[in-house]
Amino acid sequence: MKLTHFRLCPFSRSIRLAFAELGLEPTLVEERPWEARAAFLAVNPAGELPILELPGSLTLCGSYSISEFLAEEAGQAEADERAMQLFPGSLEDRAEVRRLVDWFHGKLQREVTGAMLAEKVYLRHGAGAAQRGPAAPNVELLRALRANLRYHLGYISFLNDQRRWLAGDEVSFADLAAAAHLSVMDYLGEVPWDDYPLAKSWYVRLKSRRSFQPLLADRLPGMPPPVAYTDLDF
Amino acid sequence: MKLTHFRLCPFSRSIRLAFAELGLEPTLVEERPWEARAAFLAVNPAGELPILELPGSLTLCGSYSISEFLAEEAGQAEADERAMQLFPGSLEDRAEVRRLVDWFHGKLQREVTGAMLAEKVYLRHGAGAAQRGPAAPNVELLRALRANLRYHLGYISFLNDQRRWLAGDEVSFADLAAAAHLSVMDYLGEVPWDDYPLAKSWYVRLKSRRSFQPLLADRLPGMPPPVAYTDLDF
Repeated sequence: MKLTHFRLCPFSRSIRLAFAELGLEPTLVEERPWEARAAFLAVNPAGELPILELPGSLTLCGSYSISEFLAEEAGQAEADERAMQLFPGSLEDRAEVRRLVDWFHGKLQREVTGAMLAEKVYLRHGAGAAQRGPAAPNVELLRALRANLRYHLGYISFLNDQRRWLAGDEVSFADLAAAAHLSVMDYLGEVPWDDYPLAKSWYVRLKSRRSFQPLLADRLPGMPPPVAYTDLDF
Repeated sequence: MKLTHFRLCPFSRSIRLAFAELGLEPTLVEERPWEARAAFLAVNPAGELPILELPGSLTLCGSYSISEFLAEEAGQAEADERAMQLFPGSLEDRAEVRRLVDWFHGKLQREVTGAMLAEKVYLRHGAGAAQRGPAAPNVELLRALRANLRYHLGYISFLNDQRRWLAGDEVSFADLAAAAHLSVMDYLGEVPWDDYPLAKSWYVRLKSRRSFQPLLADRLPGMPPPVAYTDLDF
């Protein structure tokens, strides 16, 4: 299996976490989203990440399709008792997991992560950036995104006050999706953890898992994360 | 079961089609997205449609969660042979259905339907529209959205050239999602059908289904659809 990803793409990160939690190791190939290469677009006309290529020329595009595929396949295979169930529990429990996946991969992405990545990473690396020199940061936009992020951290704290994990008693793909977004923002030094202790202690629990370690080791050239990014006791 | 929807919301329409194809009739309650009522936001903090309230205070939000819930529930219930399977076929077939649902509810929504609805419907009805009077249409924006729509119609034609339905041999939720978006654009008179005969003949097949008839009967006050909207031989 070949997984095409970008190291700071939150969708890619959520699927890398899911693979690791299921004990699977796909071959990783990196694509830089701002390059929009023709060969990449031929495989995936939506131009979105991640992409999973399976033996036998089957290609799955996007975290929705891949996460549900992995869950169905794990359900059919010999169950490894230690592996995470991506959508655990009853019909109703699974619906709540999916509502929250939609919340983080949909709403949090639209309101924070997508624009933050574009502003702080893609514009610095995109076409012409070398000639143009670094663009001045859009201070107004960043202020709005930071306010939105606080709203989402409040929601994560609220959920953690009611439940053991975001969607209920069991850890699920909702936790992986949320943590994927926060890990990207954390790499960029944008998460005011100290103001949200419940969200912080939930994130520490995820960050301590084995599945998280490869993500924490990734670096973007010329743009190191803050020291606390890899620190489990931050 | 109570389904909160808005009559021209493509996500709501896709779920209404799914209910009808499964032979289920939820009670419909309408919410106008531009009003952002407090009672509505209390049930669904994302403020997105549709919402399904089930007996016993369980609430499902969003088309992702609801479509997968309906599919799982239908799979567990006595199978009605005539009912559509929302995600039919093998693991791989279902992954392709989900890729396309993501394409239409994600990419087509971002690139066309969302902004078209905002421009042509929400801004006309939103807060202060009565005092302000009708805003002038944003001609540049509409031109860009129409070009994007042509790209998507080309993709639907391409898929129909290869397959009987969008995701394969079987009709699926991918067809319902795509048709929901196109039906909204069609209501607004925005679909250049004659330039895309393959997409048109696929749409005629869906539009002829029983499940489609309630959608075709809906009207927005003061904004009637073109005559061809309900015509099966347009």
